[in-house]
Amino acid sequence: MSSSDIFIGETIGTALLILLGGGVCAAVTFKRSKAYEAGWVAIAFGWGFAVLTGAYLAGGVSGAHLNPAVTLGLAVEGGTEWSDVPVYLAGELLGAMIGAVLVWITYYGQFQAHLTDPEIVGQAGGDKKPASDEPGPVLGIFSTAPEIRNAAQNMATEIIATFVLVIAILTQGLNDDGNGLGPLGALITALVVVGIGLSLGGPTGYAINPVRDLGPRIVHSLLPLPNKGSSDWTYAWVPVAGPLIGGAIAGGVYNIAFA
Amino acid sequence: MSSSDIFIGETIGTALLILLGGGVCAAVTFKRSKAYEAGWVAIAFGWGFAVLTGAYLAGGVSGAHLNPAVTLGLAVEGGTEWSDVPVYLAGELLGAMIGAVLVWITYYGQFQAHLTDPEIVGQAGGDKKPASDEPGPVLGIFSTAPEIRNAAQNMATEIIATFVLVIAILTQGLNDDGNGLGPLGALITALVVVGIGLSLGGPTGYAINPVRDLGPRIVHSLLPLPNKGSSDWTYAWVPVAGPLIGGAIAGGVYNIAFA
Amino acid sequence: MSSSDIFIGETIGTALLILLGGGVCAAVTFKRSKAYEAGWVAIAFGWGFAVLTGAYLAGGVSGAHLNPAVTLGLAVEGGTEWSDVPVYLAGELLGAMIGAVLVWITYYGQFQAHLTDPEIVGQAGGDKKPASDEPGPVLGIFSTAPEIRNAAQNMATEIIATFVLVIAILTQGLNDDGNGLGPLGALITALVVVGIGLSLGGPTGYAINPVRDLGPRIVHSLLPLPNKGSSDWTYAWVPVAGPLIGGAIAGGVYNIAFA
Amino acid sequence: MSSSDIFIGETIGTALLILLGGGVCAAVTFKRSKAYEAGWVAIAFGWGFAVLTGAYLAGGVSGAHLNPAVTLGLAVEGGTEWSDVPVYLAGELLGAMIGAVLVWITYYGQFQAHLTDPEIVGQAGGDKKPASDEPGPVLGIFSTAPEIRNAAQNMATEIIATFVLVIAILTQGLNDDGNGLGPLGALITALVVVGIGLSLGGPTGYAINPVRDLGPRIVHSLLPLPNKGSSDWTYAWVPVAGPLIGGAIAGGVYNIAFA
Repeated sequence: MSSSDIFIGETIGTALLILLGGGVCAAVTFKRSKAYEAGWVAIAFGWGFAVLTGAYLAGGVSGAHLNPAVTLGLAVEGGTEWSDVPVYLAGELLGAMIGAVLVWITYYGQFQAHLTDPEIVGQAGGDKKPASDEPGPVLGIFSTAPEIRNAAQNMATEIIATFVLVIAILTQGLNDDGNGLGPLGALITALVVVGIGLSLGGPTGYAINPVRDLGPRIVHSLLPLPNKGSSDWTYAWVPVAGPLIGGAIAGGVYNIAFA
Repeated sequence: MSSSDIFIGETIGTALLILLGGGVCAAVTFKRSKAYEAGWVAIAFGWGFAVLTGAYLAGGVSGAHLNPAVTLGLAVEGGTEWSDVPVYLAGELLGAMIGAVLVWITYYGQFQAHLTDPEIVGQAGGDKKPASDEPGPVLGIFSTAPEIRNAAQNMATEIIATFVLVIAILTQGLNDDGNGLGPLGALITALVVVGIGLSLGGPTGYAINPVRDLGPRIVHSLLPLPNKGSSDWTYAWVPVAGPLIGGAIAGGVYNIAFA
Repeated sequence: MSSSDIFIGETIGTALLILLGGGVCAAVTFKRSKAYEAGWVAIAFGWGFAVLTGAYLAGGVSGAHLNPAVTLGLAVEGGTEWSDVPVYLAGELLGAMIGAVLVWITYYGQFQAHLTDPEIVGQAGGDKKPASDEPGPVLGIFSTAPEIRNAAQNMATEIIATFVLVIAILTQGLNDDGNGLGPLGALITALVVVGIGLSLGGPTGYAINPVRDLGPRIVHSLLPLPNKGSSDWTYAWVPVAGPLIGGAIAGGVYNIAFA
Repeated sequence: MSSSDIFIGETIGTALLILLGGGVCAAVTFKRSKAYEAGWVAIAFGWGFAVLTGAYLAGGVSGAHLNPAVTLGLAVEGGTEWSDVPVYLAGELLGAMIGAVLVWITYYGQFQAHLTDPEIVGQAGGDKKPASDEPGPVLGIFSTAPEIRNAAQNMATEIIATFVLVIAILTQGLNDDGNGLGPLGALITALVVVGIGLSLGGPTGYAINPVRDLGPRIVHSLLPLPNKGSSDWTYAWVPVAGPLIGGAIAGGVYNIAFA
């Protein structure tokens, strides 16, 4: 694959991933959304089919990593050239930011209504406005936050969940002919992501992808959203570092166990 | 493909799409339905498997567009002849109208019970009867309506959601051999539609298909339903224009990015 | 295929279909079941994956009709010999009865607890015991019953829903090589059944299969269940006749439209 | 396959199965989990996609039994050498234990919060602490327990549910070329498991796999969890014996009916 194929495929694929993934978080969060409170099953399938959409599109173009943890795992394993890694990462981060902006445009009216609702942001009395160090009321549409905040525990969860994702993707090499991700591989990967969400998403919201968390968090900090509150930068390193470690471990384990 | 294949495939395929898609809206709306209040997950999967059914049937006959936005996107991209476009559109609109009539027949008893229930249509006091400019109590079984009514915002949502659908369908060309939509392609397209529903359906109910909205709306205005209320024609142009724009953009982006 | 292959495949396949299909109805009905009140999404997917299990097993043996409406549709269409029809029907009915007995064994403790619970069967005061002409308290685990009882309406619903099923199955012939139902075809058929359940199951509970309703109803009338109430035989002809008509129409339409 | 391939594939595959399967039980059990009370649909899909993940990975390595009932069924049927059985069993049990430990690490903070919550374990008054012979408050994350405790009934349920699983897996031989479990076979097996969960899981929680129950139960008895209560060893033999019997019957029936 040429660098331009990689960059284009990763940018568009990751943008679709984050548009649909952030979209389902918006869909269940906003009161004036038809999917309001549709629950965790909706979120897990929404993110899974977000992966399907992005991976189906980018599979034949860039191999559809859409995730620096996947790129790192494949580089460790040997399926991706280290020299291609920077191009993958650039496309992934740019795509994630584009996707987050598209979520905002798609749900523009809902964002405005939600963030100017006194019940939610406490403009009337001011007492419901989040403190400066708490995640803002719509940050969950952009980035992840743990249920119980403890860096070591949250890292462990993200490492394990990402390990599962990346080892499953590497397994492609045992099944496919190696020429990128085919449609059936994209489908199975998507359903594995549904499974990770249902099973391992409980503690931290399963970033399992550095740019899935970092790209939208940057967009959250830049967008002119009223009463948006903190972007919670103190947690931001966990969903970057954890997935990278999990992906690298998966690459290593794969080589030791199956190569 | 011959014009008659296109017309027959699109008519029957779109009729199945709207029968099952409108059907799930009826299923969750009526109190005397076993699926009453089954929720947004039911709706999203219902519409997705509606696409699967129609696309599986029409894939080998007409290529299974079932949607003028798909036809336009493929014409812009080059996969469909412009001269075939009118035949596609005619079959799609006719099929959508047939499908809406079949929903009415399938749920005939429920329509009658619902629309003569004083709790719902306020016949007793008259005060619950919708005003002439509000969507009628069963219009949601036929056509879409936004949660927050703002033409520019609603257009943006429909453009983005349809772009996702059509770019995913065009991607088929990267994966398949180009001879219409095979079973695996139909399945993946269906699951992408589930994903669009879960993630991007919140603000407008995701028409993402001009005839999916227009055909049933025409049928709603013609059917002899008691107390049916307004067909909400003032909104009707948005789910026609938005998807067409989104489909055309997808065709153009696909050619620039991947061709 | 030999007659013995047909009989064995249809018997075992239909038994699995009804075991899993009746099973999910039991699972959501009984208070002392882990799936109690899991909702219509559970029921629709449960029946769909029941079809998957039966069809996956019998696909390579008997072609996996598992349903007289499918057998009739295929006979009308020409894919099945009329002389094989009796063997198909015999296997299907026997399998459906075996499946219903297996549901009873699987949920034996739950049946006993439910049917001797005074809250449910009103043994204490006798006033909750169903009248002799009302469906018994567990009949819904065996057979279907309409939400609004009107033979013409219920027939129309069953005809339309079965038409969708059978036309989708006939479409296999456009996609596969004709040597029975392969794994991907079984999967898509199963998801079409999920879609029919979500979308068209609301009014009558979607028998869409004469033996799916008749076989378990016979078993209900024979089993020694305490306080089981009526087997509702006055309705029993609708879910037999409706699906047969729908299947025959699908065979005819298929030949006219696509052959 | 070499013994080392079998051992490695089964160990890693079963570890993934139990990590994701136990994980979804944790996800819906803990109050401080994003999936809290997501319901039985979440559990059934979570376990199904757990099977998908493990089977997809191990399919090309060890054939992906991941379950002594499958190994026994295949040995009876003839697809697996009896001399390989001990290696399969060893990998399966070790993998199941590793998976259960990984669930504990993933949800470490949630386990601690839950098991030190006076509302749940009754530390304050002591009256909510489970009696020594009752399943502990988190045992359901590790092992199964019946809704109605009756060994004969619970055995019957597990035998029937496991029969369905193993006969479906044996059917692979009718569809595939026999060289292990391919991606489509893994997907269909996973969805069959979703179906078994939805339909037959109500009475006992569908172990349908001896090590799925025994491995995590051993881990529960060994882990230093505060207030963990009983490991319920009196029930432990049922989800071991029942699945083995069901698997063996499936192997025999398969040979009689289809070979």
